[in-house]
Amino acid sequence: VIVTVGDELLQGDRLDTNARWLARGLHDASFRVVEILSVGDDEAEIARALDEASRLAAGGVVVTTGGLGPTLDDRTREATARFLSVELDEDPELLASLAARFRSRGHPDLPPLNRRLAKVPRGGRILPNARGSAPGLEFMLVEDPVTLLFLLPGVPSEMEALFHGPVLESLDRRLPRRLDRPFAVVVRTTGIAESALAAELERSLPGGLDVNLQYRPSVEGVELRFSATGVGADSRLDRALEAVEPVLAPWRYGGAEATLEAATLDACRRLGWTLATAESCTGGMIGSRLTGVPGCSDVYQGSVTAYANRAKETLLGVPESLLAAEGAVSEGVVRAMARGALEALGATISVAVTGVAGPGGGSEDRPVGTVWFAVAGGGMPVEAERASFPGDRDEIRRRATQHALRMVWKRAVARSRDG
Amino acid sequence: VIVTVGDELLQGDRLDTNARWLARGLHDASFRVVEILSVGDDEAEIARALDEASRLAAGGVVVTTGGLGPTLDDRTREATARFLSVELDEDPELLASLAARFRSRGHPDLPPLNRRLAKVPRGGRILPNARGSAPGLEFMLVEDPVTLLFLLPGVPSEMEALFHGPVLESLDRRLPRRLDRPFAVVVRTTGIAESALAAELERSLPGGLDVNLQYRPSVEGVELRFSATGVGADSRLDRALEAVEPVLAPWRYGGAEATLEAATLDACRRLGWTLATAESCTGGMIGSRLTGVPGCSDVYQGSVTAYANRAKETLLGVPESLLAAEGAVSEGVVRAMARGALEALGATISVAVTGVAGPGGGSEDRPVGTVWFAVAGGGMPVEAERASFPGDRDEIRRRATQHALRMVWKRAVARSRDG
Repeated sequence: VIVTVGDELLQGDRLDTNARWLARGLHDASFRVVEILSVGDDEAEIARALDEASRLAAGGVVVTTGGLGPTLDDRTREATARFLSVELDEDPELLASLAARFRSRGHPDLPPLNRRLAKVPRGGRILPNARGSAPGLEFMLVEDPVTLLFLLPGVPSEMEALFHGPVLESLDRRLPRRLDRPFAVVVRTTGIAESALAAELERSLPGGLDVNLQYRPSVEGVELRFSATGVGADSRLDRALEAVEPVLAPWRYGGAEATLEAATLDACRRLGWTLATAESCTGGMIGSRLTGVPGCSDVYQGSVTAYANRAKETLLGVPESLLAAEGAVSEGVVRAMARGALEALGATISVAVTGVAGPGGGSEDRPVGTVWFAVAGGGMPVEAERASFPGDRDEIRRRATQHALRMVWKRAVARSRDG
Repeated sequence: VIVTVGDELLQGDRLDTNARWLARGLHDASFRVVEILSVGDDEAEIARALDEASRLAAGGVVVTTGGLGPTLDDRTREATARFLSVELDEDPELLASLAARFRSRGHPDLPPLNRRLAKVPRGGRILPNARGSAPGLEFMLVEDPVTLLFLLPGVPSEMEALFHGPVLESLDRRLPRRLDRPFAVVVRTTGIAESALAAELERSLPGGLDVNLQYRPSVEGVELRFSATGVGADSRLDRALEAVEPVLAPWRYGGAEATLEAATLDACRRLGWTLATAESCTGGMIGSRLTGVPGCSDVYQGSVTAYANRAKETLLGVPESLLAAEGAVSEGVVRAMARGALEALGATISVAVTGVAGPGGGSEDRPVGTVWFAVAGGGMPVEAERASFPGDRDEIRRRATQHALRMVWKRAVARSRDG
């Protein structure tokens, strides 16, 4: 059972992305999530939700997120003490480490509000939080059957790090016999629509294997989860994957943790290639994804975001006459941008993007969603593609970013295959 | 109380956007949402959730969404019949209108599965659904105090139309005396920590106003929500906002829907300024945020993402000798980058960023999290700042992006004030 805490959820001010993240994390760790409860920043209501959740989760686990910060509307600690009918003690070690943390940032004294972070409902085990000042807490609610409660902070990066670290470690130790842990393989694909992929997969999956297949489509592509449980699950899963291999091969860039930007950088790195980008409507999103990968600097050289035409001319050498004749969103301009980026940044391969992300700026010839792409370098001729994307400004830009990365990835993979 | 139904929610396959939409809708209709419950497509679990929800919502309303479709995993009708201990009757009028709907689409016979859509738990009032085949249903759970239950389909457009139509109409008729609608004002701030802001606000808020203050911190800043209910709520809220005005003024960039990138672009636009960026560790994130704002092109010219040193030299004119002497993450280099961006992109004002985002690349002098910033142009001397950010690579980059936008915003706001 997952409990998320925050008035902003009940007032509809924020989407509950933490609930979804925890649901997937617990699901992937072979738990069946039976309920998600969201409550406001109210001590009595949080305590009541903990009571309800712990009854539903008997023999399992309750994970809460939110309400552990320093301000007075953070009430999860107090609510837990109330629910468990225990005292709220100040932990001297935790207090010392909080004070040290603040000193290292140039605050000689711990602010009085932050002192609240050292309060622990009696019986709680402290889960240190390397990314923030509020630690997580763990409680054994019932010894037999083991029923656990974890309190996690609401800041996503802190919650995720604690979940992947001490929470999963404790769950694996204390609740080792869960549902038959399904054998599951996740495959990430890009460049093919969910319905087209589904049609091909259903055709090639042999009957009688009892392998479950889930589709998780997004703007970035379709994630597939093949899973099987019971006798011979692993070999049935292997046979299913073998059967669909020819269908998946052209679209698959990796497994559960893969990102297309990391796959692209890896493919370039293996060839000794360096990469440059030239962005217009994506405005830096391609570079932002590539530089999100640690250690990208041996491959990625940089980008020219040429939002204004002047920048396309001066930094990428796109001729003014070409811009005037064909317009900024055109095959000629995107090819010139890709060549210009290659030269300006001294890279082996480059990709360029220019398009109409909307909501304004569309025309009959070039409606909103029209995007031109070009790749240059890597010992192959410049190649251009035109796409028409659905959705709003954000979605068009995200689809364009994925498309641009895919063009580089495909060129590098093709070059590796050809030797 | 809101109940959302669907296995995909519990497995983390889908964000619960319906819950958020209903929460906002009920909040805006002056209801206090006390809990959101999400359960899977299981009859017993839905029935249990309805039981729990109806107890919590005594004297109010329960709204469910999902599980009303024709397929066999749609169980909300059956679960409601079980929870109410009533029969599930086939409604002849509903059946006739379903058959007519299918005939008008070229299906002479109603498919057997779709016949399920005509089942109604005894006592339910049918809420016709103009956009789909599954109607909504309304039940009076308790007569005194009036407690209502609405079942709505999970397709967002159908749910929304039914909520705005027959649901709100019935609520206004049957539950007219709701909580006093709260007066609320949202303020977004950046550049000050939650605890520091809280300490200053608690000091300056006069006692006795009975104004509630919520803090919503994120990497981008702290969002504040001031609210008051009851007699004289609006004037008490005004007095509170007046009292905290001097505290908020330096940090506030807007209200509920504001983003710092839009505020920055607006501030530049009012001065007739154009803006350029030079990014290194942020790799395009600043440009990506700015270009996310429709109509940014009159202000934003573009960016040079100079990830490699070579790009810093050739595109931004940073002297090789300076890079060798001071290193890429240094005051000298960031100042040269800002000046170079100003010139290369022909803008009025520029901001440059270079830092160590980690996890590798840190040193004793420049540990991970060290980031240098500079703003140039706008008729003021070049100004540099050094920051040390906590968190992982992603968080450091997001904090650096926010800091860079803030520097431009502050310079533009300062220039506007000085005339």
